[in-house]
Amino acid sequence: MEWMDDIYSKKIAGMRKSLIRELLKLTQKPEMISFAGGLPSPLTFPQEEIAELARDVILKEGSWALQYGATEGITLFKEQIIEFMKEDGEDVCLDNILVTTASQQGLDMVGRVFINSGDIVIMGRPTYVGAIAAFRGYEANFVDIELDEHGMKTDLLEKKLAELKEQNLKPKFIYTVPDFQNPAGVTLSLERRKHMLELAREYGIIIIEDTPYRELRYVGEHVPSIYSLDQNAGYVVALHTFSKILFPGLRLGWITAHTDVIDKFVLAKQAMDLCSPPLCQAIAYEYCRRGLLRGHIAETIEIYREKRAAMLEALTRYMPQHPEITWTEPEGGLFLWVILPENVDVDKMFHKAIEENVAFVPGTAFHADGGGKNTLRLNFSYPSPEQIDIGIRRLARTIENSLPG
Amino acid sequence: MEWMDDIYSKKIAGMRKSLIRELLKLTQKPEMISFAGGLPSPLTFPQEEIAELARDVILKEGSWALQYGATEGITLFKEQIIEFMKEDGEDVCLDNILVTTASQQGLDMVGRVFINSGDIVIMGRPTYVGAIAAFRGYEANFVDIELDEHGMKTDLLEKKLAELKEQNLKPKFIYTVPDFQNPAGVTLSLERRKHMLELAREYGIIIIEDTPYRELRYVGEHVPSIYSLDQNAGYVVALHTFSKILFPGLRLGWITAHTDVIDKFVLAKQAMDLCSPPLCQAIAYEYCRRGLLRGHIAETIEIYREKRAAMLEALTRYMPQHPEITWTEPEGGLFLWVILPENVDVDKMFHKAIEENVAFVPGTAFHADGGGKNTLRLNFSYPSPEQIDIGIRRLARTIENSLPG
Repeated sequence: MEWMDDIYSKKIAGMRKSLIRELLKLTQKPEMISFAGGLPSPLTFPQEEIAELARDVILKEGSWALQYGATEGITLFKEQIIEFMKEDGEDVCLDNILVTTASQQGLDMVGRVFINSGDIVIMGRPTYVGAIAAFRGYEANFVDIELDEHGMKTDLLEKKLAELKEQNLKPKFIYTVPDFQNPAGVTLSLERRKHMLELAREYGIIIIEDTPYRELRYVGEHVPSIYSLDQNAGYVVALHTFSKILFPGLRLGWITAHTDVIDKFVLAKQAMDLCSPPLCQAIAYEYCRRGLLRGHIAETIEIYREKRAAMLEALTRYMPQHPEITWTEPEGGLFLWVILPENVDVDKMFHKAIEENVAFVPGTAFHADGGGKNTLRLNFSYPSPEQIDIGIRRLARTIENSLPG
Repeated sequence: MEWMDDIYSKKIAGMRKSLIRELLKLTQKPEMISFAGGLPSPLTFPQEEIAELARDVILKEGSWALQYGATEGITLFKEQIIEFMKEDGEDVCLDNILVTTASQQGLDMVGRVFINSGDIVIMGRPTYVGAIAAFRGYEANFVDIELDEHGMKTDLLEKKLAELKEQNLKPKFIYTVPDFQNPAGVTLSLERRKHMLELAREYGIIIIEDTPYRELRYVGEHVPSIYSLDQNAGYVVALHTFSKILFPGLRLGWITAHTDVIDKFVLAKQAMDLCSPPLCQAIAYEYCRRGLLRGHIAETIEIYREKRAAMLEALTRYMPQHPEITWTEPEGGLFLWVILPENVDVDKMFHKAIEENVAFVPGTAFHADGGGKNTLRLNFSYPSPEQIDIGIRRLARTIENSLPG
């Protein structure tokens, strides 16, 4: 409707439909093997347990589960979160926690609480597409720092922060997914975590530590969170979610931060949706209270470990031998990252892949500036090991045909 | 933490804790009778039905109930919404509907999609405090139009729109709660609904029709929604919620609008929380599919009709005889509005009332400019008829003691 063109806000006028979302529509055909989404495998959903437990908790805790709840989250539920985090070496109290409608709302609230139009935000290159969307909604300017197999290169970060300071520019925060990063699958080393935190303190800026996959480690050693290294000094805001460790249909996550910061997030959330569904909080609460979550995560890890191995094996077997074709070997999470020779245009190749009935997300989606044209992201949590084998074979053929010469 | 003072956004720095929320903390004592909240009565919650049904639907529909869902909402659920709305004379299709995390998210999304910093928004005087909070979060400027017993005075609205036009100012939208308005309890007459719509079309602005209480009518005749009067021409965005007709712990609502407008809301919601909980959508879907919702609303109406009558009766019996003490007689909803003599300061009186163990919300909360100092809002949905009688007696005594002379 033309008369409405000048009615929309600048914020929304600047937003585009999610590329991934549009791509996913192309991948609905039954013969398609999709490495495009980021969906957990339904095999991991404890459906029958949740069904019985939902009935029980509604009968037992209906007085709060069906009513409005406190904006911060239900105290009983937050106490379970504290216990869960303790096992990961995290020391938080009730006032350090705000329950969110999963991590995407956490990202949106980070934008609301910290970003003024034009503010600088530092991210990895590549970085999570949902974070780009959330921060773009607040008209942020992005500065990105290259990753390698040990995560964000903090020596480059240090240089960039010094450069910005010289120009009298102060970034609002550093956004990082330190564990099994989406999309690259790499993990920030302990040394770099410490370095990043030092830099945050030196420059008086905060770190947004997004941890959706943290619990899903298949090989290697657990690395302490940046939040725990900060010892609650206020330099880290950490985002957590139940989407990957229980099931995403709950839309439940939580933020941990210094109480002063949590106060601001509560203000924002009051105006945004009053509270996240107490019904969902009750179900997650009861699941934790019965001591089921750790065992469930262990089962999930077994399922994904096999899928990760299947994908790495298939890549080794089928991908064309070429010195400029590489991929990451994630120690956890849901994704790995493929780099092709500089002159391959993955956006174009994508359509050929769709014809071959295999889907992925072109790497440009994970670059705020549209770069990364020769990269792509593969998800291994959703397809079966058999589908992974067939799909990677198709993908390898498509890549082979896209190589110049 | 002082070092953080310049880190927060201007949006959040301008926000204040909800007065109502702080007040509610004062009303936790068991001897307190509170007319302050806006909570539905737990008596209306179909707890056992929901418990059994939650189990059934998780077992039957777990494949989508536990997974991520489309940003627009689950199609099966939206089909139930369409059927429900048909019975109210509303003709909408799937593309006219977006599922939200209840109406507060709808309000926040309205701000996101329409408001630039400094934009003018037209509201009733008084108006819903959550709408003030949501739109203030986008740095709106408020222009308010007086209400009387037939809702917003559209003759004043017409005058104001002409005045603004002369100053070359175009408001972004008119926000209205036409049915049993929160806080005033008044209903916009059919004549004024038509007039408001005419004005919207004449001036090329939209109407945000917020309808949380629409189904809860205890006396009088149903009035067509402004959305239905517009016949989907795009001048009305309507907000709906399950909070008052099923239970608030679901945090589920929906927006109806022209498809072009829904597209923008989908963009906003993608960045805000990806989707509202599919688990909650599944439960509401199943409740509707079994044909339980209309019967449940009828039962809820019976419970609230009695409470409304109890409050009106108690006010007539106990309130001081004074020509300048009046209250509205809502035909539905959860609230009524009391106006005291001009020189009574209700913010001060509030603390005396708390000492008398009765709570309400001072009218200033519902005025963006802090006006309405001699007014207050009473909720009748939460307390029992017996508590209403005792509470209004306490309130009347407090008012009597606050009258000058």
